[in-house]
Amino acid sequence: MDNITMKLNADKYLLMALEEDITSEDVSTNAVMPEYKKGKVDLICKEDGIIAGLDIYGRVFELLDENTEIDYKVKDGDKVKNGQLLATVTGDIRVLLSGERVALNYLQRMSGIATYTNQVASLLEGSKTTLLDTRKTTPNARIFEKYAVRIGGGCNHRYNLSDGVMLKDNHIGAAGSITKAVKMAKEYAPFVRKIEVETETLEQVKEAVEAGAHIIMLDNMDIDTMKKAIEIIDGRAETECSGNVTKENIDKLKDIGVDYISSGALTHSAPIMDISMKNMQPI
Amino acid sequence: MDNITMKLNADKYLLMALEEDITSEDVSTNAVMPEYKKGKVDLICKEDGIIAGLDIYGRVFELLDENTEIDYKVKDGDKVKNGQLLATVTGDIRVLLSGERVALNYLQRMSGIATYTNQVASLLEGSKTTLLDTRKTTPNARIFEKYAVRIGGGCNHRYNLSDGVMLKDNHIGAAGSITKAVKMAKEYAPFVRKIEVETETLEQVKEAVEAGAHIIMLDNMDIDTMKKAIEIIDGRAETECSGNVTKENIDKLKDIGVDYISSGALTHSAPIMDISMKNMQPI
Amino acid sequence: MDNITMKLNADKYLLMALEEDITSEDVSTNAVMPEYKKGKVDLICKEDGIIAGLDIYGRVFELLDENTEIDYKVKDGDKVKNGQLLATVTGDIRVLLSGERVALNYLQRMSGIATYTNQVASLLEGSKTTLLDTRKTTPNARIFEKYAVRIGGGCNHRYNLSDGVMLKDNHIGAAGSITKAVKMAKEYAPFVRKIEVETETLEQVKEAVEAGAHIIMLDNMDIDTMKKAIEIIDGRAETECSGNVTKENIDKLKDIGVDYISSGALTHSAPIMDISMKNMQPI
Amino acid sequence: MDNITMKLNADKYLLMALEEDITSEDVSTNAVMPEYKKGKVDLICKEDGIIAGLDIYGRVFELLDENTEIDYKVKDGDKVKNGQLLATVTGDIRVLLSGERVALNYLQRMSGIATYTNQVASLLEGSKTTLLDTRKTTPNARIFEKYAVRIGGGCNHRYNLSDGVMLKDNHIGAAGSITKAVKMAKEYAPFVRKIEVETETLEQVKEAVEAGAHIIMLDNMDIDTMKKAIEIIDGRAETECSGNVTKENIDKLKDIGVDYISSGALTHSAPIMDISMKNMQPI
Amino acid sequence: MDNITMKLNADKYLLMALEEDITSEDVSTNAVMPEYKKGKVDLICKEDGIIAGLDIYGRVFELLDENTEIDYKVKDGDKVKNGQLLATVTGDIRVLLSGERVALNYLQRMSGIATYTNQVASLLEGSKTTLLDTRKTTPNARIFEKYAVRIGGGCNHRYNLSDGVMLKDNHIGAAGSITKAVKMAKEYAPFVRKIEVETETLEQVKEAVEAGAHIIMLDNMDIDTMKKAIEIIDGRAETECSGNVTKENIDKLKDIGVDYISSGALTHSAPIMDISMKNMQPI
Amino acid sequence: MDNITMKLNADKYLLMALEEDITSEDVSTNAVMPEYKKGKVDLICKEDGIIAGLDIYGRVFELLDENTEIDYKVKDGDKVKNGQLLATVTGDIRVLLSGERVALNYLQRMSGIATYTNQVASLLEGSKTTLLDTRKTTPNARIFEKYAVRIGGGCNHRYNLSDGVMLKDNHIGAAGSITKAVKMAKEYAPFVRKIEVETETLEQVKEAVEAGAHIIMLDNMDIDTMKKAIEIIDGRAETECSGNVTKENIDKLKDIGVDYISSGALTHSAPIMDISMKNMQPI
Repeated sequence: MDNITMKLNADKYLLMALEEDITSEDVSTNAVMPEYKKGKVDLICKEDGIIAGLDIYGRVFELLDENTEIDYKVKDGDKVKNGQLLATVTGDIRVLLSGERVALNYLQRMSGIATYTNQVASLLEGSKTTLLDTRKTTPNARIFEKYAVRIGGGCNHRYNLSDGVMLKDNHIGAAGSITKAVKMAKEYAPFVRKIEVETETLEQVKEAVEAGAHIIMLDNMDIDTMKKAIEIIDGRAETECSGNVTKENIDKLKDIGVDYISSGALTHSAPIMDISMKNMQPI
Repeated sequence: MDNITMKLNADKYLLMALEEDITSEDVSTNAVMPEYKKGKVDLICKEDGIIAGLDIYGRVFELLDENTEIDYKVKDGDKVKNGQLLATVTGDIRVLLSGERVALNYLQRMSGIATYTNQVASLLEGSKTTLLDTRKTTPNARIFEKYAVRIGGGCNHRYNLSDGVMLKDNHIGAAGSITKAVKMAKEYAPFVRKIEVETETLEQVKEAVEAGAHIIMLDNMDIDTMKKAIEIIDGRAETECSGNVTKENIDKLKDIGVDYISSGALTHSAPIMDISMKNMQPI
Repeated sequence: MDNITMKLNADKYLLMALEEDITSEDVSTNAVMPEYKKGKVDLICKEDGIIAGLDIYGRVFELLDENTEIDYKVKDGDKVKNGQLLATVTGDIRVLLSGERVALNYLQRMSGIATYTNQVASLLEGSKTTLLDTRKTTPNARIFEKYAVRIGGGCNHRYNLSDGVMLKDNHIGAAGSITKAVKMAKEYAPFVRKIEVETETLEQVKEAVEAGAHIIMLDNMDIDTMKKAIEIIDGRAETECSGNVTKENIDKLKDIGVDYISSGALTHSAPIMDISMKNMQPI
Repeated sequence: MDNITMKLNADKYLLMALEEDITSEDVSTNAVMPEYKKGKVDLICKEDGIIAGLDIYGRVFELLDENTEIDYKVKDGDKVKNGQLLATVTGDIRVLLSGERVALNYLQRMSGIATYTNQVASLLEGSKTTLLDTRKTTPNARIFEKYAVRIGGGCNHRYNLSDGVMLKDNHIGAAGSITKAVKMAKEYAPFVRKIEVETETLEQVKEAVEAGAHIIMLDNMDIDTMKKAIEIIDGRAETECSGNVTKENIDKLKDIGVDYISSGALTHSAPIMDISMKNMQPI
Repeated sequence: MDNITMKLNADKYLLMALEEDITSEDVSTNAVMPEYKKGKVDLICKEDGIIAGLDIYGRVFELLDENTEIDYKVKDGDKVKNGQLLATVTGDIRVLLSGERVALNYLQRMSGIATYTNQVASLLEGSKTTLLDTRKTTPNARIFEKYAVRIGGGCNHRYNLSDGVMLKDNHIGAAGSITKAVKMAKEYAPFVRKIEVETETLEQVKEAVEAGAHIIMLDNMDIDTMKKAIEIIDGRAETECSGNVTKENIDKLKDIGVDYISSGALTHSAPIMDISMKNMQPI
Repeated sequence: MDNITMKLNADKYLLMALEEDITSEDVSTNAVMPEYKKGKVDLICKEDGIIAGLDIYGRVFELLDENTEIDYKVKDGDKVKNGQLLATVTGDIRVLLSGERVALNYLQRMSGIATYTNQVASLLEGSKTTLLDTRKTTPNARIFEKYAVRIGGGCNHRYNLSDGVMLKDNHIGAAGSITKAVKMAKEYAPFVRKIEVETETLEQVKEAVEAGAHIIMLDNMDIDTMKKAIEIIDGRAETECSGNVTKENIDKLKDIGVDYISSGALTHSAPIMDISMKNMQPI
């Protein structure tokens, strides 16, 4: 993760997470270790997968003590194996103990998402279709989870409600029609935005493409309807397929020619990757 | 969730999550709905399970507009069925649209945890063993996830590093021995804390119980060793079993007579419960 | 301004501005008015123009006392005249006195921007060209200033560095060429973003349009070059003209057929509108 | 700006301004520059004037990366010329690109205020009168704008409602009379405060000076009345003249013998100084 | 305390204090009281003294639940007696229990300060001398403690380093002389500030008064020297006496004719007033 | 104080305290010292006692300028004498002047608490009884005051409402009986908590010990009743004696065999220790 995003956006969450875990002091550590003691510890993978979040992991310790040194053996996006040494961390053992849980909680989740995304994305290889995430991220973890999706080989849909326009049925209802909604959005939204319209029927698809929508979402349509929709659109807009897409069912969407498939499961259902810190010892 | 915890601890996270999703404005909604329009929407369950987090769900909308009204049809801890109406929300449609994703992101995760915890806890029924969570929670979501564990029928282990004492191998190494570590902890820690010691061998178990540890964790021991440990302890300390416990493997731990089993999976591996908002319409 | 944007994005700035002006207490008011005293005051325009920011003005007083009542006589976007009554505010006189300066500081600046934008936009009437703002806003006032531009009849360019892609010469240099930069941006950026490229020569314009840029900025070109650029682009991308555009010089850009003209002056050089509070009296 | 004010008061605004401009990441830069690349850039003046805010400009980049180096060629308060090199900045090009707009937005405004203040103050040269600012500053920018006034050769009026006592007509009305209001203020306010009274008539001036006001503001009086007021006061209190004072009309106030003239225009109507960053290149 | 100061300055401290005392939840209360239960409780004085901070006390409960009702039987500044009923609080018993400690911690300290200040101030009755506090307040409690001093009958010295000018020996040393320091301060400081100079010898007193200092502090001088200093000053500046002034030793300063006596003991050594909440019961 | 607690918990209070004291700038210092000037100053004790808070004292200056160097001559917990040199501080004189008051305000209070605690604890020497603090701490200073108690030789009771269970009469009333309340608490509270019950009669003591309370508080009982209570409990629970315990009256509790005595006076009535900064000079 680049340093600017880290400082402006990630650090505040990392500090809050540390404060969540240490509201007054680390009682156990303070009871038995009143003084600085230098030590090191290994970060070891317990499952195969794609690693993501190493900078975040390391930053947790640096926020506690800027003299902590992390020697990374791999980098984000690398395929890692059960038993592999990912990094060694050297610093005050009290810092290593107090920061361990928060650092691992981030790394395990981010690597889990990257691994799962990678598995799903690989099922689309050879097709023209790009895999997207959604806004179904863990609250207050979006910056980390959308990054992990990219590391895993997916692309990002809009970041949030402020930086993308998606006209759903209620927006369309309020405007009066798809045509009117698209027109209103083009007039209102910052001009650097594409306008996306959510459709459920072929009639809606037709209206959307004629209204000048830049992206047309095919929402929970069956395969045949989607194919017809893509024919109707005929390259005049980008197409996105959405609706409970997972590793188990994405295969059947691979060849219908849609530009994008979005999947909430990438962020809300990826199992964590088991990673642990071992062999902590004074040096 | 009680109102005080909501105001002092939950609200700040809910607001941050809303700000994460709306950094300037909800462009789509503002483009087509410049004015207040009253409407209502149904909250509907798409899977069977245990619901948890209804107050949090509702609070998201109230933070956006204190006039939003939520008519709950069920309460936290209830078993709910696919298709069941959980609540109706009435208010400004713009608020219903802008808050939907954040509210559901919380409710789905919390209900997923409650459901999974309930499944695991039910496997311990009839035994003397209590199911515990761990600190392997999502960063900045502990207050929500530990609550969901309780709703699902589990109990909470320590909240964080400040309110419980757990002496691990590195703490013991720093102190010199289990005996010394327990003594130091009793002298240092606020006296309302129990002292827990993590053990991996029967020798450690013996030393811990004689040192006066209040709780002895049997960490990644095999079944036979755990049984022997419990015999050695013989009621002089509480016992906790820990180590990759999941729904799939907890059964074999049921009858060994341990007081507590802790499982990180409750919070880091529970799949979300599918819940959605449907039938939004002006009224 | 819609209520959600107000609560999630504007309120924090308003509160900070009040804290900036009252670090401990309003000494003058507290010295002579120890008790609540109900009163009212008129908000009166001292110059002709377009009013913008009335909700913000009122919100300042409501944040100090939620019982303050504001009776608006006009609404944002209305043309107002010197001497015209804009609103009456009724509440605790201490609140009216303590909030006056902060409320007016916002209203005067926002109305100044709306008025200036309106003057510039009216010079483009009859053309196909839309007037845009820039990121040259006052730090920590962008949400207010971009809103004021819209009220004045302008449109918003990207909100910030996170929600729009603009490839400048240094980005292009880093990528190696415009073609490579556009390709990298399309792969990296969330797919709801249009890709804009800044160009200074016709060669760059050609490369940009062939690389598939969605928007091409013509940066500080002379009129003839711009016309040629627009011919080259020939509708294959949107066009934006930029570079020290003000009320005084926009006229000559009106008929060249560019889609958008952006002007930093809208936010950094609009003079304030003189507005004051008069006739405060107990009731 | 001294380091303590920078850390305790300015930094928080600078960070907020950066977060305003980068809510998740700088998409353009991250798309084409995944890695650190060292570079430098020139800061060049595009207009003649008085420079102010160089430390603030530099601090923006340091907050993004503490290794950024700024080589200043001038210092705050210097007269600068169109085309003059003000500084060179060396560091990660990604930091130079991402921080550019926020850094310039501050520097341009502050230099604009210093330049305008300098022009107005120079019109008072040779008189005994000192030029003052007001509280008509941009919300959340007072610390920067009052500093810029001092750099330009003006002096500061009270910082805010907490650190100065100004008794206006409504305060006087509430107290019952000027005499009573001054007495109440002397009893209530911290004793290090001078007490200022706003007056509109010669009767009020007389009452104020006899009540022991330390400063008497002559509010929107004509020249002759002001002269009489100053005669009445006869050195028993300091005098301040106020009311829509600008560069265009201050001349006629120069010789009436008032101690202070305050002008809101210094902060609310100073045009920005055009300054830009040029010649960015890798090194 | 006025509502504006409460909202802008006190509330944030009250909320932080509540968060300090409830980092996740009130475990005891939540364990036995899962539901709202209305109740009331008496606030009773256990010592004689001057009550101060009733609004703060009540606000703590209102911040937890805006429906809490407080029926005050006395008001700030009243003399109260051991055993006297000060207020009854009615609301959710859980709120009454959870807020009790924070509310009392504030009220006891503030009333202690008011009581002590009142005792000291009464020793100055009949003299021309006014009692002042200092900046020796508890960190993050100044707004409460300076208020309590006023309630007790004292006056406030400067609030902090930003709103008063006090030239100490190191300032004078840096400037070169008292004369130069006063001149520099008059030029630099906002003109609404009086300039105070700290003196230790009669030579310094002479220089300060001739330099035009508005206030001259006589720091740790003996009685005779102070008398001579006051003669030298002869009304040309205000005078302040400072240096370990307490209830026990202020008497001897009473008749020397100094304008102000400042005492750090008012805020750093006032014993708390014993106050408790009794007779909590459901209603 | 360990570095992690300092960064995560203390720093935010120190910064707030500095901002409380410097809302815009240190006017006096900035008026006469526009530039960095290196200097040093001595920290000198003016009373005998136990020093506590040296790290906090030093941290205040480091937060203002990380280049400030503090050469400590003593360490927390040392007995110090009137006139003793505690430390020398070297750095920018402006930092030494601006941070002095906040740094001393912390050090004086913390040392006062450590000294008073030490005096009280020494009265219990030779007994089996341990001295405890309470939650009667200064709002927003608990982390500092509980630390000072430990330095003085006391132990900490629970930190706050979230990390300890104390069942008072209202909790018991809500549950229905002590027996029920203890049962509910054991089921609800995180299992690492001991359960404490407040008792006022021997009947309550009996019920509490039989209900399995881990700690029984003897609240405001007379000596004879306490002795009987301790006999009844007979080692089956820990015992705590509470109720207006001070240095003056603790002696009579020394020999009754209670495990713990808690005293609010340690934090709410300890007089400050007089400490000052002297001999500041340029170097």
